[in-house]
Amino acid sequence: MQINYERLLKDIERYSKYGKSPNGGITRPSFSEADRLVRDLFIHELADMGLRITIDGAANIWGRLKGSGKKRGCLVIGSHLDSVPNGGKYDGPLGVLTAKEIIRTLTENNIVLEHDLEIVSFTAEESNDFNLSTFGSRAFVGKLTKDMLENACDSKGRLLKEELERVGGSLDNFPAMEKSFKDKSAFIELHIEQGQRLESENISLAIIDKVVGMYRSTVRVIGQSNHSGTTMMEHRKDALAAACEIILLIEEICKNEGNDLVGTVGKLNVFPNATNIIPGMVEFTFEIRGESEKQIHEVVNKIRDNWMQIASEREVEIGENVFLNQKPIMLDSEIVSILKNSAVELNEPYLKLASMAVHDAAHMASVAKTAMIFVKSKDGKSHCPEEYSSPEDIEKAGNLMLHGLINLDRQLD
Amino acid sequence: MQINYERLLKDIERYSKYGKSPNGGITRPSFSEADRLVRDLFIHELADMGLRITIDGAANIWGRLKGSGKKRGCLVIGSHLDSVPNGGKYDGPLGVLTAKEIIRTLTENNIVLEHDLEIVSFTAEESNDFNLSTFGSRAFVGKLTKDMLENACDSKGRLLKEELERVGGSLDNFPAMEKSFKDKSAFIELHIEQGQRLESENISLAIIDKVVGMYRSTVRVIGQSNHSGTTMMEHRKDALAAACEIILLIEEICKNEGNDLVGTVGKLNVFPNATNIIPGMVEFTFEIRGESEKQIHEVVNKIRDNWMQIASEREVEIGENVFLNQKPIMLDSEIVSILKNSAVELNEPYLKLASMAVHDAAHMASVAKTAMIFVKSKDGKSHCPEEYSSPEDIEKAGNLMLHGLINLDRQLD
Repeated sequence: MQINYERLLKDIERYSKYGKSPNGGITRPSFSEADRLVRDLFIHELADMGLRITIDGAANIWGRLKGSGKKRGCLVIGSHLDSVPNGGKYDGPLGVLTAKEIIRTLTENNIVLEHDLEIVSFTAEESNDFNLSTFGSRAFVGKLTKDMLENACDSKGRLLKEELERVGGSLDNFPAMEKSFKDKSAFIELHIEQGQRLESENISLAIIDKVVGMYRSTVRVIGQSNHSGTTMMEHRKDALAAACEIILLIEEICKNEGNDLVGTVGKLNVFPNATNIIPGMVEFTFEIRGESEKQIHEVVNKIRDNWMQIASEREVEIGENVFLNQKPIMLDSEIVSILKNSAVELNEPYLKLASMAVHDAAHMASVAKTAMIFVKSKDGKSHCPEEYSSPEDIEKAGNLMLHGLINLDRQLD
Repeated sequence: MQINYERLLKDIERYSKYGKSPNGGITRPSFSEADRLVRDLFIHELADMGLRITIDGAANIWGRLKGSGKKRGCLVIGSHLDSVPNGGKYDGPLGVLTAKEIIRTLTENNIVLEHDLEIVSFTAEESNDFNLSTFGSRAFVGKLTKDMLENACDSKGRLLKEELERVGGSLDNFPAMEKSFKDKSAFIELHIEQGQRLESENISLAIIDKVVGMYRSTVRVIGQSNHSGTTMMEHRKDALAAACEIILLIEEICKNEGNDLVGTVGKLNVFPNATNIIPGMVEFTFEIRGESEKQIHEVVNKIRDNWMQIASEREVEIGENVFLNQKPIMLDSEIVSILKNSAVELNEPYLKLASMAVHDAAHMASVAKTAMIFVKSKDGKSHCPEEYSSPEDIEKAGNLMLHGLINLDRQLD
């Protein structure tokens, strides 16, 4: 039994039309018009497949296929449908649409699992303007509560709770999610690798047993805005020049750490941002990811020590607001082992890797036995229009997921 | 005869209420709601003073006081009423409102000049979202034409010609301005210094005989956007890190040039500007100001040579679009000399300085005999809420302007 990968590829193309710009990039953040349209499409297609649809408090979309009833709880497969600005068509949708394809394959082959099977599409997995990445899975497992989100808003002042309600979610339904997650026995997420480790080994897929830790903060540099013509160079307290020194420092320190750790400044805003005014303030995001919690914190501390020195030399102030501090997460060894054995049965070579990106699986791991499968990414590119995984690699990963799921259903009580 | 400086200070306070934010900063770019309100106020007050009002094609506001008719042409005094984002209350309005105070003083003292006298408030003097600073004076003297502006729009896609029409201007009236400027015999603009040269000599005012040259461009750095977790440090083409190197280079090279030259990156935008994406593109403004054209171009070339090296090392592309390249401008020696003699008559110490900022006077100098007077700025601050000139210094400068104007009226044919 195999998935119909041509049908899956057509699905990927079809879904990629929502939020696509002329350059081929996809801009489909959660709660956008494109996101609302793709949600409607997805819900209708799941209903047509005979699945029972639920939209939970966080507006995550669930579709349930009844099993034989022999085993309690359900197995979950899926990922997310939102994208970063100008992103690609695989990051997220590949996992959701492969899950949909697997359900179609099982149904067409009259396979009834012993567990119920659920497909899920999580809300707002990508970093977003609410500063709440992996929002849907974090909310689902109880890490984000109604109280924490009551006043959450984006940079335009839009309230998260109102955006949620426009797509069928509601903060009032958050307490009900807690009952719901106790029903989930296992979760497998298929995702593109977004790196070059598989490509450099020329292997199609990886089984993931660990997710790296992540530290994220907003750094604010306060200098002094002044006239760009009349303020001599030595009288300036230029917040942008100070920020530039810090950004190059982050790059240098992380480069010296080797391949277990990366550091990035991805978002930066200048105030007041006018041609003839020396920047008075700069705000930027600071992110460190690494396999070891200890290493992450050593690097963060080293960078902080250095930026305090820059602040003192340039007479600027530096403030930091940490908004994410996530330890590395071990995934479920039983599912990892079942996936490995399934790969051997299929005669499919694989790598065992840590994920350098946080996925919804990292949060689902706190309530259900969880593992991931990665598919090779061309040139390691993702979060950009050039993101690509080959049909052959997608087919292999989909079939590993299908057989792994069947083996999991048999072996899990 | 002296100006009523208390009345002038009250005017400054009154006008500063338009566009004021809770922190005291004034945000009144041309065409904004605050700008439209302040234009209405100004026009009504000029009309109440018996002046004949004209709004020209560029929406510059002119108010004319009849002279004795002995001499042809008119003398012009004024400046601008628009502000930078979060700016102060003196940059611009001080020149306009001192001009208004001088007209009131002349009228109250029944002084009738031999020339007609005009007050002017120029449109959009400050750098603005249309990338057209000193817009009103440049348009008035014919440096900006209808054809050049037909499709000009801001970053939100708003057409300049439509914004102009909302405040009484019109591209269709541009040709008529050419006839109008032939009527202007002289222009004197009073403005705050915005630097620390007067303060460091403890002198209240300066007579300006030269305006520095200015070079402005937009620099675009193109790297490669990619996932911030899965892209190892050595595989990155981070456009922001490259831009940071260039910005620090600009700062270093300009610092080494001494006090005749300054260089600034005031505006910078990152694309796509998301926490978990390595910046794929950065755009920033690059500005150099200096007293010598030769020095400006040597510095620009040196910086360009260096950034090409950064581009090659980091495998990014750098493009530059020059949007202003203005030579240093000599002001009128006759008016400068009359102002100096007037200062001596008033027993008022002064400095003779070059202006490090471009003002409307720099453009008016191409059609009329022109000079400027600067007033001392506290701590050299401007374009910020802390911008301040003392009542004493304002009074001294206003009286020099009043007496200089009377002497100019007598001596100029």
